[in-house]
Amino acid sequence: MTHRLLVIGGDAAGMSAAATAKRRAGDAIAITVFERSAWTSYSACGIPYWVGGAVASGGALVARTPEEHRRRGIDVRTGSTVIALDPVRRSLEVRDEDGTISSHDYDSLLIATGAEPVRPDLPGIMGRGIHGIQTLDDGAEILKTMARAPRRAVVVGSGYIGLEMAEACVQRGLDTTVVDRGETPLQMVDAELGEQVRTAMSGMGITVLSNTEALSFELDEDGWATAVHTTAGRLDTDVVVLGLGVSARSKLAVAAGIPVGHRGGIRVDEHQQVAGFDGIWAAGDCVLSRDRITGEHLHIPLGTHANKQGLVAGTAIAARAMGIEPTLTFPGVVRTAVTKICDVEIARTGLGEREAKAASIDAASATVVATTKAGYFPGAEPITVKMLADRSNRRVIGVQIVGKAGSALRIDTAAMALWSGLTVDELAMIDLAYAPPFSPVWDPVQVAARAVIKELGY
Amino acid sequence: MTHRLLVIGGDAAGMSAAATAKRRAGDAIAITVFERSAWTSYSACGIPYWVGGAVASGGALVARTPEEHRRRGIDVRTGSTVIALDPVRRSLEVRDEDGTISSHDYDSLLIATGAEPVRPDLPGIMGRGIHGIQTLDDGAEILKTMARAPRRAVVVGSGYIGLEMAEACVQRGLDTTVVDRGETPLQMVDAELGEQVRTAMSGMGITVLSNTEALSFELDEDGWATAVHTTAGRLDTDVVVLGLGVSARSKLAVAAGIPVGHRGGIRVDEHQQVAGFDGIWAAGDCVLSRDRITGEHLHIPLGTHANKQGLVAGTAIAARAMGIEPTLTFPGVVRTAVTKICDVEIARTGLGEREAKAASIDAASATVVATTKAGYFPGAEPITVKMLADRSNRRVIGVQIVGKAGSALRIDTAAMALWSGLTVDELAMIDLAYAPPFSPVWDPVQVAARAVIKELGY
Repeated sequence: MTHRLLVIGGDAAGMSAAATAKRRAGDAIAITVFERSAWTSYSACGIPYWVGGAVASGGALVARTPEEHRRRGIDVRTGSTVIALDPVRRSLEVRDEDGTISSHDYDSLLIATGAEPVRPDLPGIMGRGIHGIQTLDDGAEILKTMARAPRRAVVVGSGYIGLEMAEACVQRGLDTTVVDRGETPLQMVDAELGEQVRTAMSGMGITVLSNTEALSFELDEDGWATAVHTTAGRLDTDVVVLGLGVSARSKLAVAAGIPVGHRGGIRVDEHQQVAGFDGIWAAGDCVLSRDRITGEHLHIPLGTHANKQGLVAGTAIAARAMGIEPTLTFPGVVRTAVTKICDVEIARTGLGEREAKAASIDAASATVVATTKAGYFPGAEPITVKMLADRSNRRVIGVQIVGKAGSALRIDTAAMALWSGLTVDELAMIDLAYAPPFSPVWDPVQVAARAVIKELGY
Repeated sequence: MTHRLLVIGGDAAGMSAAATAKRRAGDAIAITVFERSAWTSYSACGIPYWVGGAVASGGALVARTPEEHRRRGIDVRTGSTVIALDPVRRSLEVRDEDGTISSHDYDSLLIATGAEPVRPDLPGIMGRGIHGIQTLDDGAEILKTMARAPRRAVVVGSGYIGLEMAEACVQRGLDTTVVDRGETPLQMVDAELGEQVRTAMSGMGITVLSNTEALSFELDEDGWATAVHTTAGRLDTDVVVLGLGVSARSKLAVAAGIPVGHRGGIRVDEHQQVAGFDGIWAAGDCVLSRDRITGEHLHIPLGTHANKQGLVAGTAIAARAMGIEPTLTFPGVVRTAVTKICDVEIARTGLGEREAKAASIDAASATVVATTKAGYFPGAEPITVKMLADRSNRRVIGVQIVGKAGSALRIDTAAMALWSGLTVDELAMIDLAYAPPFSPVWDPVQVAARAVIKELGY
């Protein structure tokens, strides 16, 4: 009998899984995907660049349309919202665009409901012109606000989406202010590197109010936001972007009795299966991923994880459909992340000072300034690298990078080192690419490793 | 008593070692460096960019002058050529610029004599205007030829120095032809990627004559080269660059009874000590390095190895001077290399098809074309990645990359994978940096890993 797979959510994780399961199991599986919006398989990470104008249309962010998926044998139902999940009867209740409610049974279920922007319970926060940025529809919504020719923008929060959106606002000619709770912007890097981010933001005309919290939003008679009240005073504005991070969209799962953890993320095993719920898998921005350094299960919503987890879940479900053992596993993450603001590139992997302390790791650290190319080569730019190592075993546990063109991707060298559990001593001696147009003779990441070695003692 | 260290050769390896030994052992060591030229600690890899005009002067390539080293307590003697080594009496014979010969005893000796361009025994090869490129003096020499306003250049050989010099010649406005024995230029990558290199070279106006050998050089009455005779006919020229690779400059060592291997390289242990010759170390372009994949000891002359080996040798010699055990070791190489021609970046690590076959490894391979950024992001460029894996254990054994801006440094991800012995399956799932301005959601290296997995079977 054909195995029935239902998928909730048609973006990266859901459609990767569906496409993988279909490719592997073929006619042995029948797949239906329920997606609330009109879109599938799009790059949510590209939305700030669409809003800022670097990317011409929302459609450009779509890797594969519903119709393309259907041609590959996947029954994609857009405009369909799943309103209930019964894990005992193995069925979903689904509401169509026209309000019709239907029931669907499954053999396997994949929850790929994604994440939603954190929207703190502040007066006026539901006003018009106050936007979270997570789905293509969110992008379309803020562009409607942008069509009203706003002059001023306030971004609340300075996570990478907040920063990318602040840049998008500046690119659209808006007078832009970022209101941020922290000491320095972009908490994905430690304070000394955050200061460089602040400088880059100031350089492009963004006002950064640190140690500041949003308190309420002033709305006009039509419900449009006109000002943000903060602990640093009142800020007139025409558009507000919420950049306070996201939480897992897991209410449906919770209502079905599925336990959740950090920021509402669903805990899954290495095959992306929900423990204790046979036949239910989950992947993407709604799940927790295991941090390989600390062993914690954390909510780290990133498109790259969503795609990999979708592949793993799809492989596992196909194996179930074919009655074989699944092979592929999701091995966890090392918290690699990258972004840019203007021409400044920012990247991190592993733990920062805060996370190391929280994990009770006695860390040695060093921060170095090197160049992206041989110092004498035209276009060599400064690059700051901070590295942390565990004093007990000299292993690299975290790296942060801030610098201009050619800086950020060097974080991959560090991510690979963390992944394999290398010590600073090993990392310093590895055979990385060297030629004057690409790198100084000691790679900046290795310069940082040597500085940590000096700190730890030879 | 003060430990006497003599160093032969004052470039990367020699001066790294000397500086390290002095820093570690302080007054316990007295260091004298004999250097033939007037220069120390310069970037030989930068010479093509000096010749091409991107770097303004040879001096810009000097990281630390003899005077700067002297101020740090190292007795640097420029214009001094070591003419004999007696490992039994532990002494060197040295000829100064004025012809004076002196004898010097050592407790420890470091041989850091570098490499020299291969100069095949062809009629006319010693003519004027025929240049190998290895030392700053070589750079100064070819610039003298360039001052004669040549119109045509022939580059013999298509290694990376040959290619970089061909580009430099074009940048100086010369009509440039590369004569190359191989099927495709730049043997550091396999033929299908070499074809892309050929296209890039043609695109900048370089004529590439493949399957062609230089036979002899025609000289005028003053001894200047005027033409190259090749198996494809006669080529008029005003300047010739030898890009046939280099061999270790190890005649002095050989004369002292020190055995050498591949391309004349001196074999050393992991502390850079010459086996069987107590008190003699060697580092840099004159030694062999252990290939971590095949275990072979190969001559791989690169500035990055020279610096690391100098650090290791200097640490070991300082330990000897202080009567302690050396800790730091040189762990071998994975054959990472990178270069560019015009706006095309080329990189490799590990083994290509040829080397895999030579090592009797049954390799699976796949070649993919991806993009350097998210496909929809402005400035996304095509990047070709070829990956080889050992069928017996699924480990990555080699990666080659050709692409435009943002391609080459991704080889470091591959180098790290090779270093740690990762399988293609592991590499495909690692947490690399993802954001639309930096990478597609599956990193190009991981796209290649997935293609190899498909080839190997899931």
